Amino acid sequence: MNCNEVRRILVLLLLAPAIAQAQSSSLRVNGQRLMQHLSELAQFGKNPQGGVSRVAYTNADLQGRDYAMGLMRAAKLEVSIDPAGNIVGSRAGSDSSLPPILIGSHIDSVPEGGNYDGDVGSLGAIEVAQTLNESKVQLRHPLQVIIFQNEEGGTIGSQAISTGLSERDLNLVSQSGKTIREGTKLVGGDPARLAEAKRRFGSIAGYFELHIEQGGTLEKENIAIGVVEGIVGILHSDVTVEGFANHAGTTPMDQRRDALLAASQLIQAVNRVVRSAPGRQVGNVGKIQVWPGAYNVIPGKVVFGLELRDLHANKITSMFEDIQAEARQIGQTSGTKISFTEPVVSQPALTDAQFQKLIDSTAHELGFGTKVMPSGAGHDAQEIANIGPVGMIFIPSVGGISHSPREFSKPEDIANGANVLLHVVLNFDRNHHPDK
Amino acid sequence: MNCNEVRRILVLLLLAPAIAQAQSSSLRVNGQRLMQHLSELAQFGKNPQGGVSRVAYTNADLQGRDYAMGLMRAAKLEVSIDPAGNIVGSRAGSDSSLPPILIGSHIDSVPEGGNYDGDVGSLGAIEVAQTLNESKVQLRHPLQVIIFQNEEGGTIGSQAISTGLSERDLNLVSQSGKTIREGTKLVGGDPARLAEAKRRFGSIAGYFELHIEQGGTLEKENIAIGVVEGIVGILHSDVTVEGFANHAGTTPMDQRRDALLAASQLIQAVNRVVRSAPGRQVGNVGKIQVWPGAYNVIPGKVVFGLELRDLHANKITSMFEDIQAEARQIGQTSGTKISFTEPVVSQPALTDAQFQKLIDSTAHELGFGTKVMPSGAGHDAQEIANIGPVGMIFIPSVGGISHSPREFSKPEDIANGANVLLHVVLNFDRNHHPDK
Repeated sequence: MNCNEVRRILVLLLLAPAIAQAQSSSLRVNGQRLMQHLSELAQFGKNPQGGVSRVAYTNADLQGRDYAMGLMRAAKLEVSIDPAGNIVGSRAGSDSSLPPILIGSHIDSVPEGGNYDGDVGSLGAIEVAQTLNESKVQLRHPLQVIIFQNEEGGTIGSQAISTGLSERDLNLVSQSGKTIREGTKLVGGDPARLAEAKRRFGSIAGYFELHIEQGGTLEKENIAIGVVEGIVGILHSDVTVEGFANHAGTTPMDQRRDALLAASQLIQAVNRVVRSAPGRQVGNVGKIQVWPGAYNVIPGKVVFGLELRDLHANKITSMFEDIQAEARQIGQTSGTKISFTEPVVSQPALTDAQFQKLIDSTAHELGFGTKVMPSGAGHDAQEIANIGPVGMIFIPSVGGISHSPREFSKPEDIANGANVLLHVVLNFDRNHHPDK
Repeated sequence: MNCNEVRRILVLLLLAPAIAQAQSSSLRVNGQRLMQHLSELAQFGKNPQGGVSRVAYTNADLQGRDYAMGLMRAAKLEVSIDPAGNIVGSRAGSDSSLPPILIGSHIDSVPEGGNYDGDVGSLGAIEVAQTLNESKVQLRHPLQVIIFQNEEGGTIGSQAISTGLSERDLNLVSQSGKTIREGTKLVGGDPARLAEAKRRFGSIAGYFELHIEQGGTLEKENIAIGVVEGIVGILHSDVTVEGFANHAGTTPMDQRRDALLAASQLIQAVNRVVRSAPGRQVGNVGKIQVWPGAYNVIPGKVVFGLELRDLHANKITSMFEDIQAEARQIGQTSGTKISFTEPVVSQPALTDAQFQKLIDSTAHELGFGTKVMPSGAGHDAQEIANIGPVGMIFIPSVGGISHSPREFSKPEDIANGANVLLHVVLNFDRNHHPDK
């Protein structure tokens, strides 16, 4: 080796990080391949009328999981199934002392669901790993691509590795007809070793999940990337309106105690209360039943399901209180008795503020507009928030349609989202120093 | 016979009609016996929780009919079952050229019904016949006490003898699980000879039916006797509200097309339209269904059953038009599509004006207050109105409760009603001269 050669090598060594950064900043996923993979996955559980029914623990779910594990292996990930039944594809980092970065989502669907909810984040994460592999990018942190089992049945896989599953959870019968315990075993988990699947707080560097918005805001405002500020809390309560069932022909209008008439007033009030304050809170009355339920009988009893969601628990509480106050008024004027079951509440989960900034700046680096927004739907990220910082990247859903065969996101939006995920991982890996 | 004796006899002969009238005007039914009969009839189909389930064509119905025929025979009525399955108890008149006066009602009940709807009029009519028999009152007209079969299943027996039953009617499966044809045969009718059961227009002098009000007006206003001006017409239509089912967490409030929210506005509008005009018209939304029907899905479709009733067909039509106009407005503002099925309409049946006057004046003669009112419920009288003049006498229903084990009318009100029926028959028989 002569002096010039030594000098050249020295320059290369000194410039290596800059060159590597320049190279990696131009890195892009293969959007066409990602769409091809999404289309191949869509075959498992495909419905004749479009969309998929790939309900957790069904054959379609098992086939989809096999397919995803094949993609992981092709991306040179080391594939395993944890005792909770989650698929984990691992890639070593240069610094084995660092905790892993997790990316992923789920591939199970609701019955008659679509091909984007969960799938985009799962196959998008595998595409990120494949891109890193093909470009021979070495991260400092280990990387784990994780596909959580049975998200649609209540974020089961992510709950299992964070707060854990109770015996009661394990005995719940899931949509497939199998219990969570049976299903977990079926997909390759080991319900007897669930404790080993649990990860302690701080055992991960962070979790990033790419997902479709499932609402229509990004598309409507023509924004490519949503920066999720948190996952809303949800309140459910059954509302019972008791009037008096009587002959609808012989009872004068002013002598009725019509439970459905009172319920319809309260449904209006729910909408009014939810919309009366600024913010992104939502409320829904999605089911209703009336007794005895005949043309010619004044409704004696109505039960309807109330749902309220917001990023802030106190806003949920205050809306619920306002609705109860309206109910008292309506009960008095209509001669009915209105009662609410003890509300079942899932707490909101905020994403990490630094992660929000990272996603936002990374998206802008790539030339995309962003909008900070809540996630109105539940996600695995809200469970993982219990063991480490999480961030979520949304891409537009056409027409805001989800949980439907008509669910659709455009190929360019999917590629954009995967590229943001890729560069969020690169930027985080480069800049994250827990000691600082 | 001396002259004095002759004179006495002459005076008696001359005064006989006046004495007979004086005697008959003090005639009263045996209220205690009537209550005893009602209580005995209540045993057939008695429910553990009170009331009866004496659905037409069941064993309880057959037992109740046997019991009623026994009472008729005890009242010296000649009992037969017509080919339509109606029980007819006949009493000869002094002038066999006159058409019969009909009185009666039904003894079948709705499932879990009460002990007054139909029973009061049926056993009240038998009690009238028994009273006439015991007092040896000879009417000019033949009298027929008639107990119509399967009133609750759609005034089947009375329809059979007036406008007739179609093949389609005969093949309808009634509440009992039997077809009308099977049931008619079971109770002793002969479906093959139904044509013989039909009575031609003008073949009856008139029909008087005593019935409980089934509403709360008479009790509330403390009036003993309701003079029914007619039986309301009924319109049924199914209303479909089509919105868009979407994720209730991710869809902003201002981007929803919520079918239940729109339906609840329309239910309010139905109530408003019905109550906005003076009169006794009524409207009901008694059943509702929502799709897909989950806490977390915005209702995509709602179907509810609309019923409108009034004594005047044009008022029913105008209310229906007003409701459709409201629906168009609500559809526009809520982004939903609201449609109505072709309405199924039963026409109103007016009672005879002379009969109304007769019932009213007779009630006043007996010292009772009266109120002229529509019947909000359907009755056999509306069918019989097709073959001759009809009149209906209402007595108070406590709390306006009917079609329920809690249906109740006071013994004195029942006796009052039966006495009005008795004297309406006597007054009509005495004063009715079709040639005048």
